[in-house]
Amino acid sequence: MAQSHRHACLMLLLLAASLLHGADLKKKTEALATLEKHHTELIKLSDQIWAYAETALKETRSSKALADYAEQQGFKVERGVAGMPTAFIASFGSDRPIIGVLGEYDALPGISQKVQPTKEAFEAGAAGHGCGHNLFGPASLGAAIAIKELMTSGKLKGTIRFYGTPAEESVGGKIYMAREGLFNDLDVCLAWHPDEKTRADTQSSQAMVDFIVEFKGKAAHAAYDPWNGRSAVDGLELFTHGLNMLREHVRPSVRMHYTIVKGGDVPNVISEYAKLWCWVRDSKRTGVEEALGRVRQIAEGAGLMAGVEAKLTIQTGDYEMLVNLTGAKLLHENLTWLGPIQYTAEEQNFARAIQRATGVEEKGLNGAIQPLEEQKPDPPGGSTDVADVSWVVPTLHFSVTTSPEGAPWHAWPVVACGGMSIGHKGIMHAAKTLAATMVDLFENEKTRSAIRSEFEAQTKGHVYKPYVPEGPPPLPME
Amino acid sequence: MAQSHRHACLMLLLLAASLLHGADLKKKTEALATLEKHHTELIKLSDQIWAYAETALKETRSSKALADYAEQQGFKVERGVAGMPTAFIASFGSDRPIIGVLGEYDALPGISQKVQPTKEAFEAGAAGHGCGHNLFGPASLGAAIAIKELMTSGKLKGTIRFYGTPAEESVGGKIYMAREGLFNDLDVCLAWHPDEKTRADTQSSQAMVDFIVEFKGKAAHAAYDPWNGRSAVDGLELFTHGLNMLREHVRPSVRMHYTIVKGGDVPNVISEYAKLWCWVRDSKRTGVEEALGRVRQIAEGAGLMAGVEAKLTIQTGDYEMLVNLTGAKLLHENLTWLGPIQYTAEEQNFARAIQRATGVEEKGLNGAIQPLEEQKPDPPGGSTDVADVSWVVPTLHFSVTTSPEGAPWHAWPVVACGGMSIGHKGIMHAAKTLAATMVDLFENEKTRSAIRSEFEAQTKGHVYKPYVPEGPPPLPME
Amino acid sequence: MAQSHRHACLMLLLLAASLLHGADLKKKTEALATLEKHHTELIKLSDQIWAYAETALKETRSSKALADYAEQQGFKVERGVAGMPTAFIASFGSDRPIIGVLGEYDALPGISQKVQPTKEAFEAGAAGHGCGHNLFGPASLGAAIAIKELMTSGKLKGTIRFYGTPAEESVGGKIYMAREGLFNDLDVCLAWHPDEKTRADTQSSQAMVDFIVEFKGKAAHAAYDPWNGRSAVDGLELFTHGLNMLREHVRPSVRMHYTIVKGGDVPNVISEYAKLWCWVRDSKRTGVEEALGRVRQIAEGAGLMAGVEAKLTIQTGDYEMLVNLTGAKLLHENLTWLGPIQYTAEEQNFARAIQRATGVEEKGLNGAIQPLEEQKPDPPGGSTDVADVSWVVPTLHFSVTTSPEGAPWHAWPVVACGGMSIGHKGIMHAAKTLAATMVDLFENEKTRSAIRSEFEAQTKGHVYKPYVPEGPPPLPME
Amino acid sequence: MAQSHRHACLMLLLLAASLLHGADLKKKTEALATLEKHHTELIKLSDQIWAYAETALKETRSSKALADYAEQQGFKVERGVAGMPTAFIASFGSDRPIIGVLGEYDALPGISQKVQPTKEAFEAGAAGHGCGHNLFGPASLGAAIAIKELMTSGKLKGTIRFYGTPAEESVGGKIYMAREGLFNDLDVCLAWHPDEKTRADTQSSQAMVDFIVEFKGKAAHAAYDPWNGRSAVDGLELFTHGLNMLREHVRPSVRMHYTIVKGGDVPNVISEYAKLWCWVRDSKRTGVEEALGRVRQIAEGAGLMAGVEAKLTIQTGDYEMLVNLTGAKLLHENLTWLGPIQYTAEEQNFARAIQRATGVEEKGLNGAIQPLEEQKPDPPGGSTDVADVSWVVPTLHFSVTTSPEGAPWHAWPVVACGGMSIGHKGIMHAAKTLAATMVDLFENEKTRSAIRSEFEAQTKGHVYKPYVPEGPPPLPME
Repeated sequence: MAQSHRHACLMLLLLAASLLHGADLKKKTEALATLEKHHTELIKLSDQIWAYAETALKETRSSKALADYAEQQGFKVERGVAGMPTAFIASFGSDRPIIGVLGEYDALPGISQKVQPTKEAFEAGAAGHGCGHNLFGPASLGAAIAIKELMTSGKLKGTIRFYGTPAEESVGGKIYMAREGLFNDLDVCLAWHPDEKTRADTQSSQAMVDFIVEFKGKAAHAAYDPWNGRSAVDGLELFTHGLNMLREHVRPSVRMHYTIVKGGDVPNVISEYAKLWCWVRDSKRTGVEEALGRVRQIAEGAGLMAGVEAKLTIQTGDYEMLVNLTGAKLLHENLTWLGPIQYTAEEQNFARAIQRATGVEEKGLNGAIQPLEEQKPDPPGGSTDVADVSWVVPTLHFSVTTSPEGAPWHAWPVVACGGMSIGHKGIMHAAKTLAATMVDLFENEKTRSAIRSEFEAQTKGHVYKPYVPEGPPPLPME
Repeated sequence: MAQSHRHACLMLLLLAASLLHGADLKKKTEALATLEKHHTELIKLSDQIWAYAETALKETRSSKALADYAEQQGFKVERGVAGMPTAFIASFGSDRPIIGVLGEYDALPGISQKVQPTKEAFEAGAAGHGCGHNLFGPASLGAAIAIKELMTSGKLKGTIRFYGTPAEESVGGKIYMAREGLFNDLDVCLAWHPDEKTRADTQSSQAMVDFIVEFKGKAAHAAYDPWNGRSAVDGLELFTHGLNMLREHVRPSVRMHYTIVKGGDVPNVISEYAKLWCWVRDSKRTGVEEALGRVRQIAEGAGLMAGVEAKLTIQTGDYEMLVNLTGAKLLHENLTWLGPIQYTAEEQNFARAIQRATGVEEKGLNGAIQPLEEQKPDPPGGSTDVADVSWVVPTLHFSVTTSPEGAPWHAWPVVACGGMSIGHKGIMHAAKTLAATMVDLFENEKTRSAIRSEFEAQTKGHVYKPYVPEGPPPLPME
Repeated sequence: MAQSHRHACLMLLLLAASLLHGADLKKKTEALATLEKHHTELIKLSDQIWAYAETALKETRSSKALADYAEQQGFKVERGVAGMPTAFIASFGSDRPIIGVLGEYDALPGISQKVQPTKEAFEAGAAGHGCGHNLFGPASLGAAIAIKELMTSGKLKGTIRFYGTPAEESVGGKIYMAREGLFNDLDVCLAWHPDEKTRADTQSSQAMVDFIVEFKGKAAHAAYDPWNGRSAVDGLELFTHGLNMLREHVRPSVRMHYTIVKGGDVPNVISEYAKLWCWVRDSKRTGVEEALGRVRQIAEGAGLMAGVEAKLTIQTGDYEMLVNLTGAKLLHENLTWLGPIQYTAEEQNFARAIQRATGVEEKGLNGAIQPLEEQKPDPPGGSTDVADVSWVVPTLHFSVTTSPEGAPWHAWPVVACGGMSIGHKGIMHAAKTLAATMVDLFENEKTRSAIRSEFEAQTKGHVYKPYVPEGPPPLPME
Repeated sequence: MAQSHRHACLMLLLLAASLLHGADLKKKTEALATLEKHHTELIKLSDQIWAYAETALKETRSSKALADYAEQQGFKVERGVAGMPTAFIASFGSDRPIIGVLGEYDALPGISQKVQPTKEAFEAGAAGHGCGHNLFGPASLGAAIAIKELMTSGKLKGTIRFYGTPAEESVGGKIYMAREGLFNDLDVCLAWHPDEKTRADTQSSQAMVDFIVEFKGKAAHAAYDPWNGRSAVDGLELFTHGLNMLREHVRPSVRMHYTIVKGGDVPNVISEYAKLWCWVRDSKRTGVEEALGRVRQIAEGAGLMAGVEAKLTIQTGDYEMLVNLTGAKLLHENLTWLGPIQYTAEEQNFARAIQRATGVEEKGLNGAIQPLEEQKPDPPGGSTDVADVSWVVPTLHFSVTTSPEGAPWHAWPVVACGGMSIGHKGIMHAAKTLAATMVDLFENEKTRSAIRSEFEAQTKGHVYKPYVPEGPPPLPME
């Protein structure tokens, strides 16, 4: 029902008059010029972060590079927010409206890669920007700087804020920041993500919860007196059997997966300790909660069966993305206004070489602006901590091409492209889309209010309850 | 420790002076003569019961034949004891000592067999005496009659009692009779069993418990909305998985086995109901109790895991046999005094033909008296409700050859031999051993007291708690 | 991709000019009049079949009633086709076009019910028409008769055929008939089904396969020498464990469900035999085939693990329904032309009383013509053997209200309504829709050709391979 | 049957005349004097090895200390035998008889402990001699030296050989040496082991096999397209389920245990790789082989079920110890001749303090010579690579007290006692027992021949097939 309502809404929006206003075009054009002016700096910033390739909560140099640059540009910077040393907020201007924009910068372990279309580590075993997060911050901060200059010249009024958000790939830094209330006073929040296509996003993401299940038994000699032992591994195996049975009794949109972290030490001792790392996902948080309730019972029952102690500890979890269709339409119009990303023959060849190397169709890069899609009841597989922000403030999200179609994500092709002109073009396109959309948001009270109304209708009565445990996230070991 | 103590006891007994006394020999010889006198009647009684072949709690005609014969012989008969229409007690004499002897008469379903050494049903699909219970009653009652005649002629004093004990193959009639206190005032109880060897039994039997585990879930359409169902079969499968894991954590003497009685109705409905029938055995009741405690947790845990209701209901259960070594020695001396069972060439040929037909070594019949064995810590697999009697009064138990060595038990060869001279010889040998031993027990206060002392040392502080549910056993459907 | 293409087709169809032609209206009106003329007979026929309530392949009297009536009406009847005594074909006319219509008449076991809005068996334990199949044949045959009269009066040319199709609820009689080629020369086949709504069906049904998995082990005494046994139940449990794991590795549209038919005899024997009854379904036959391939490996692997023999035997299986959108539009236009079914206050009260009794919202009966729905990628849960026909000839399918909204199907409310005016109105509405649509099909070569083209595009290169085993289906035991 | 035969043998032996001969007593006394002469050196050697505490195949300094000392004493030393740098043979004398004696020197990881009766690491995280192997070599080599001196003075003839045998706690160095044929020409081999009691060993040890089971699947995104993955962890779980079911179908003497070494990497990827480490033990190698055969099928079946590749790789394995009863009697007589080990009050207090600290009964040290035990059908739980030697040459084995009764083995109490006078007394007692028994073996051809006859009867037709893979064992990483 909700879905067909949304469908109807989208149809209405598509037929409605454009959200763009002629009067703003001049300011937008000015913003684009500012971005071109900072082009070299932004690219350099991205290449620096690409080279640092720092993983979640260890993004010290990456975070500092962005925060320092913001400070140089006149922003007021607050570092170490929400208990995370690598989280920060850079602000410019005063009063309402307040528009925020997000930037991630954590890399992924083990996928270091040179800027070349065949797989070869830049530094063996090191991390790499396999999700394009080196591009994220420079583009978002670049857009904020363009807005700042319009404010400085008195052409826009209000506050622009850049959020440096760490650890998207692990605990979800934005969740800690959202819990702290750091997004609460925003009128609208903007975010984008590197992708293989360029579009305003109308599909949600999966809600998920990440948790640990532990079993504690009693050791005994496995040959001499196994009857005096209680096997933690027995508990683990019964738990997974139960979980696999539960698959029949959850909706088809639910995904549950686990990995065995610890399953005993040596064969000749009845195992005292066993540990699983599990994720449960569904199209909506309510579905995740329902499945998690059943999983808790499965853990408890498995402990009882094996005569061992069972414990389930939630580590983190994302909401599903709350899509703001009014916002998506606004993004789409600005993307359309900017037009497709143009690639050189060399860039297309680079992309095709990657496609060849990874065994996918050699379609090259797709810089076209995709049509606005109808929202489907179930999102494709995938989760993000941006979704938590979307439940706190209206959040507009789009994707920009930075990698060849079909090539694997979280993998070397994304690292390779992110370190050269393909990725750099993505930065500029994202920054321009953001800046143009921000001009609309600052100037047009009606648009802000339509976005807000849609958000309020969606979240009515909802209280935001993040999955993360109390206190700041633990810093990873060196 | 307990075991080596027993071992020492046995050694002592073997070295000790014989328990037989010259003075009794005349009375024993007289008893044997009485048995020969009733030979034809006893055989006829056995053949009748063989032909009735009535299964547990339906032994109406078998029980009546024995009870009527006892009455004709002057015994006072009480029928329908302990809430079972086919249980009865036949008594003769008065005052102490009171010596009891047991007789079973239930057949086994589906193993009807003609008196011939190749497999062919007497009546297709009908029951048959595959455990030799048709021989049991006539031999035991015959011995009681021989004692009665010695009493009548004033040569023995006291009370002799025959117990007609139904349903050994199902709920265990003796357990209900033991709970009712019907054996309480006995000085000694005697029992024997058809076998492939002849010996005084010094090995215990396994203690066991027989129970049902049920799961109740919630139906749903398995294709349309399986997420609304809770599968009882899931509970069942998790239970058996847990039980199979428990095997590692019980002593090697424990046996646990189950059969799936009900596991859903049709595939396209999430199963509302599932049912298992389980047995847990161990060398001792304490071991059974310990394992049962774990099994209860497994059932509860499985229910919790599958989100269904779990229920464990005990149906019946046997104690382990309490071996009375003093009594075993007495039986052994009487068996030795009587000497081996002699078979004709025809009988040996009949036996060998059966061995041929069942693919075992053609060793024929073994009528030799086996040497008295040392008691082993763990009995061979098998349980009996005679064991419950052995915890209430000192119980002496022996085996008499009625079937070829190595041929399968609970099967047609036992039925075939039980209906002809091989079985008939077993009756007479068992009856004579019983009668001779009874003469010792009536005459020799010292022997009775040694048997009683051993029993009291073994059961000190023990309170008899049978596994059967309250009330009489439910009668089987027609 | 295929899906969006279809979507586009539907959109096109909806915008296209009507498929109805003014010239045919007169013939349709005449057909409706014929149906009104036979009203009493058709109702009587339905009530007879309702009272017979014969289950699959035992529909002797039901089938005879329909075949005899067809014969009386001048149809040529061939009985006992495709090896099933209760299958028949009634034909009238000659030459092309040849239009067929289906009729089922098997009841469901155990749901006998009186014609009243509260649950009470008409005959305890007996079968009942819980899927409304008593209504199916009279309506379909009624329409054929109406067409026959137009032929007789020379107003239509060609052949009309009624197929009496038994055993929809078990082995799928139509599959045997399709394999025999009995539908091959049809231009178009029509079918309808009782339902809680009235509409031309554009949703497919699930493809499925019904199979048995058996394990054969080696018996042994479970307490004495379990190491000499190989447990068939072990094989069964490993199979189900594997199947439950497979759920993670099949597409969300797959449904797999099973029931344990046999899982051993008695606990103290290692089980020699175990048997499962399983269904695998998916949105398409190709998905079923893929999952079945994996299930075969699971059965084989489980046998290997337990050291037992594993065997998988397919019993039957349905294709997914091939929806003909051109045909659906034609049906929709005729349904719309006829208008909604009108109910009396008494009928609505009867329906609401049923809804009250079954705990669903008291919405009464819904006789409105539902709008033509877009086809969804995955059908709701459910399968039918009509789907097999749809892969052999273009098949048009619609639903007619015969039961209250929300009340359970395959249950007493359907039986109750099928035996009174609510069901009777359904017969007449279905018959009229069929007759009107048939007039279009006989008269309009262009429509037939559009339907055929769509069918040919869908089935291009496909070879029909039914799941049923060789030979006719085994008749059920009395 | 075999067992009762053995039993009878033992009985016969016990009743037979003593194997000791008066004439040898003088030589024995001289050997004991030699040992006292080397007392300080032997203790120093043991304390050195205790302090080195080197783990399996890394016993470089320990091995060198023993080999160097043997060389100083005039032995010819061959180092690095059987492909293991830390294995060596020290020989003295020439011609037959050839008597061998074994010495181990590998420590256990992580149980470093000070010489004190409460737990405290000597060096945190370091290895410790928790199985008393520092005592093993000095005692055995000491006895060889005593024999050497008797040879040097012309009182004994033949060859004495000390085997430095590494890695008892991991791959089993003796197995590699036995495969190489290094024990083949021995007349008799002697060995002892630190223990909590002093006795000639008549119980066997468990045969066992140590293997790895691996599963290789196919990765896929667990939320996006799990249907494209084949989970190695599914294979692992099905394997363990099958293994747990197999417990019902192996003899009660079998022990099977495993630990999960690897069960996936991250939850959101279908696991490509999973690994188990397993042991199967039984009272005899034949039983291990039988169970291993079933386990191989279980691995293969689990792979088939999960659609993944399964691989079973044997790492190592021990035979069961072949007990030589003639030899055991000889050892027993020499132990009895030497009399019990005497402890000081300080030593007993040290032992009791350990017992207090580990929560066991404060019984102190037990230096009494235990009576010769009857061999039981099943050994207590535990395996050793000495057993492989016992299948190649007659091997006599005894235990000497070096640790308090009841205190845990492979744990700090053994380390503590092994580094002070309690362990030192064990060395001297073991060395004396070995030397006295060797004198008998060199002098008494009849005894040697009786030992050999018993060995030949036991191994008739047997071909020694060690479980270790081809080539030398891989050296552990630094």
